[in-house]
Amino acid sequence: MRFVIAQKEKSVIEKIVSLSKRKGFVFQSSEIYGGLNGSWDYGPLGVELLKNIKEEWWKSMTYREDVEGLDASILMHPKVWEASGHIANFSDPMIDCNKCKTRYRVDTLGDSIAEKKKKKILTTFEENLSEEKKKSLEEIYKIHSELDDRFEAILESKELASDILSETNCSKCGTKGEFTEPRNFNLMFKTFVGPIESEDNTVFLRPETAQGIFVNFQNVQNSSRQKLPFGIAQIGKAFRNEINTKNFLFRTREFEQMEMQYFVNPRTDKKHYDEWKERRLNWYKNLGMDLENLRFHDHPSDKLAHYAKEATDVEYKFPFGWGEIEGIHNRTDFDLSRHQEFSGKSQQYFDEELKEKYIPYIIETSAGASRSFMAFMVNAYHEEEVNGEQRIVLKFHPKLAPIKAAIFPLVNKDGMPEIAKEIEADLSSHLRVFLDSKGAVGRRYRRQDENGTPYCITVDNQTLEDRTVTVRERDTMEQERVRMDSLLMYLINKLK
Amino acid sequence: MRFVIAQKEKSVIEKIVSLSKRKGFVFQSSEIYGGLNGSWDYGPLGVELLKNIKEEWWKSMTYREDVEGLDASILMHPKVWEASGHIANFSDPMIDCNKCKTRYRVDTLGDSIAEKKKKKILTTFEENLSEEKKKSLEEIYKIHSELDDRFEAILESKELASDILSETNCSKCGTKGEFTEPRNFNLMFKTFVGPIESEDNTVFLRPETAQGIFVNFQNVQNSSRQKLPFGIAQIGKAFRNEINTKNFLFRTREFEQMEMQYFVNPRTDKKHYDEWKERRLNWYKNLGMDLENLRFHDHPSDKLAHYAKEATDVEYKFPFGWGEIEGIHNRTDFDLSRHQEFSGKSQQYFDEELKEKYIPYIIETSAGASRSFMAFMVNAYHEEEVNGEQRIVLKFHPKLAPIKAAIFPLVNKDGMPEIAKEIEADLSSHLRVFLDSKGAVGRRYRRQDENGTPYCITVDNQTLEDRTVTVRERDTMEQERVRMDSLLMYLINKLK
Repeated sequence: MRFVIAQKEKSVIEKIVSLSKRKGFVFQSSEIYGGLNGSWDYGPLGVELLKNIKEEWWKSMTYREDVEGLDASILMHPKVWEASGHIANFSDPMIDCNKCKTRYRVDTLGDSIAEKKKKKILTTFEENLSEEKKKSLEEIYKIHSELDDRFEAILESKELASDILSETNCSKCGTKGEFTEPRNFNLMFKTFVGPIESEDNTVFLRPETAQGIFVNFQNVQNSSRQKLPFGIAQIGKAFRNEINTKNFLFRTREFEQMEMQYFVNPRTDKKHYDEWKERRLNWYKNLGMDLENLRFHDHPSDKLAHYAKEATDVEYKFPFGWGEIEGIHNRTDFDLSRHQEFSGKSQQYFDEELKEKYIPYIIETSAGASRSFMAFMVNAYHEEEVNGEQRIVLKFHPKLAPIKAAIFPLVNKDGMPEIAKEIEADLSSHLRVFLDSKGAVGRRYRRQDENGTPYCITVDNQTLEDRTVTVRERDTMEQERVRMDSLLMYLINKLK
Repeated sequence: MRFVIAQKEKSVIEKIVSLSKRKGFVFQSSEIYGGLNGSWDYGPLGVELLKNIKEEWWKSMTYREDVEGLDASILMHPKVWEASGHIANFSDPMIDCNKCKTRYRVDTLGDSIAEKKKKKILTTFEENLSEEKKKSLEEIYKIHSELDDRFEAILESKELASDILSETNCSKCGTKGEFTEPRNFNLMFKTFVGPIESEDNTVFLRPETAQGIFVNFQNVQNSSRQKLPFGIAQIGKAFRNEINTKNFLFRTREFEQMEMQYFVNPRTDKKHYDEWKERRLNWYKNLGMDLENLRFHDHPSDKLAHYAKEATDVEYKFPFGWGEIEGIHNRTDFDLSRHQEFSGKSQQYFDEELKEKYIPYIIETSAGASRSFMAFMVNAYHEEEVNGEQRIVLKFHPKLAPIKAAIFPLVNKDGMPEIAKEIEADLSSHLRVFLDSKGAVGRRYRRQDENGTPYCITVDNQTLEDRTVTVRERDTMEQERVRMDSLLMYLINKLK
């Protein structure tokens, strides 16, 4: 069942966290000081994987006639967040303990009790399922997903909150059920520009990159001379003061987004929304993500955000359950209308073909770079048995792999190290490669498997005779003999 | 003279700012809301230029055996900034008006008066120079630079500050010379993690990326199995709460750094320091920066930062004077020793060859991505006369150019647009290209000159017959006939 599955597969995330540290994919931020909750650093392999994900996204999104790039600043004018609605609405309910004044987010405090209730109901439910149904994972997930939605609604309800709170002890002073009424706490990080810490000088770390695109709509359109429909794409950091960070890179306070806002005639919104849904799913698929671990979760119309006419999440099946890695929204003319209202600057577009003026609708594709990173890690992670021994292998798409090829001189003599160096010099101006001459070749393979390196090149005795090398493919472990002078083209073709 | 030059050439910056907006290199952040001082957004062309600069840096720094990459988070544990000395020392003196409580940075308030004094002294000085010396720009710059250093020292002195302050009116309430004693104001932006705004929950936006590297020294060394000497390279945003933002992208509150920290045996520090100085200067040179506009400004030993044994700035001759675009420092074992002290975690390295343990010395190369961007813009900006008409051309190195090639169908008929599309499809999977079919070809050339596009491909009548096109080189404006089927390789070779 799902809980059992969650328990069993939890260890996959733990394994990935541990592998990440050992191999240099991801470290805890400021680890020597005990870490900073919800912040992570990308190590030597991780930074390459992340760069490759971003680069593939950038190419697929902006190497098109109809999409322009942008890199807006993290600190923006505070009026932006009034117009966007973040100052008014981007908040969580908080309560204080009446005795010791410790502050809690309502749903966090309630979580443990609610989880217990939920688990009990679900377990009963599962026990009553027929054996046949139990076997059908898909069916179970479907039911769970429906139940999850129902529970979410219950968890958000005021009644449940006060019900739970009356049973709850303050985890600091232990007083039971003595809390203030919930008040809203804004999730934007704030800071002060200039030496005076006052409301007048307050600015926010952007909680999403999208607004940087909206306020630049006119500037980009004018300078690029684009006509509708066209999009603006951006990759950048965003920050949310989450109380509950969890699941490794899945919910962090600092994260990176890859967002594209596509400006369209309001009458064509559905068409573009559907097209972008398909394109975005294909992007993940083309980079090697298993389709059975991807799905759309369409938002029911009564659950849409205030700005959205239609919305879907691209979800990936993580070991802890389905999780959103991208949101696709029809944001209507909400954003540009609000910015027009708050700035007093027209955000209308004159459509030369139709001879009419209107505020464009926006189709948004908002992917998490950090979440995609994690999904690609999970997707790549495999444990296999090879000749009676276990190998851990990260089966990244070659385009995403941090190192494209490793070069091994079979032994450290007879001119093999020199030839390996020669190959390294030849390849490294085009590809990220790695020369490893330490230990048995079998061990070197295992190390590269854990790095996700798709090709290992071995310089052996035959190389000395005929200047050919073996190239071993990571997933099939098959080897091929390749001429040294055609090695670069061989790899470039494989990496296409 | 320098002031005259500064006056005259100031307009170059103004021209670049205006071109930047018009063509989509750089926009003011949140412009529709009047902008946010010291924040800028990179538009469609700017983001490509910036990406290319960062990519060239990344390749040259990390596609080496002895340097690993990293991407550390912006929010770090606050202890990091205690250890680094930023909490204690990274500050400017501030004063308040006794009457209306308005706060000023001492040197900003003094600036206008000090500038007047300085100008008077310099003008007298310049008038007394011989004609011959006046002609020698280099000589003059040298003298000015020495004078500047002297003036900086005077401006920093307490006596001058109080001298100037007694003559100064509060610019808000007009009261003369009534200010508090100077107090220190920390230049780090602070924010709060979690719902409670208290000192316990205060974290800072990193004022430099370097510390993210230092605290990860052990993690990177262990996971990458590197031996000394080796480096860690990182590109990322940093933030400083500058009171005085100025000179376009030169001094901003939010900026991007490209930093590499090279860990060495203390006995070899000088050698590595000198090698990195040379490598870094060559990097700018190889990307087309004129050597006469680059220089090292070595810090005199009595002006070194507390952590540095030796330091130099790579300076670029901007229209407003020489300005630092990169700093190269021998930071000794200061940083790792401090982190060892504050974290209690050993930062020693065991040198297997020498069989000894020590804390490595660090050679730092810290380049500004935003400042380099500006230097490359200034360096590229040219006004030329072509056939009696002015052309503005950005002579970027092809590797840095935002668009690598533009494709023009000569006329919009006879199958030329279709062939242009065919070429676009062929090239765009490898290069960022742009198809332009609007207006006279001469005008299209001018537009691409302003974009800095190195190659313009024209599809003309002859193309229809023999499938060759003309390729026009931006700087020489010379044209060459190239076969369509070898166009991609032709361009790839040019871009090497």
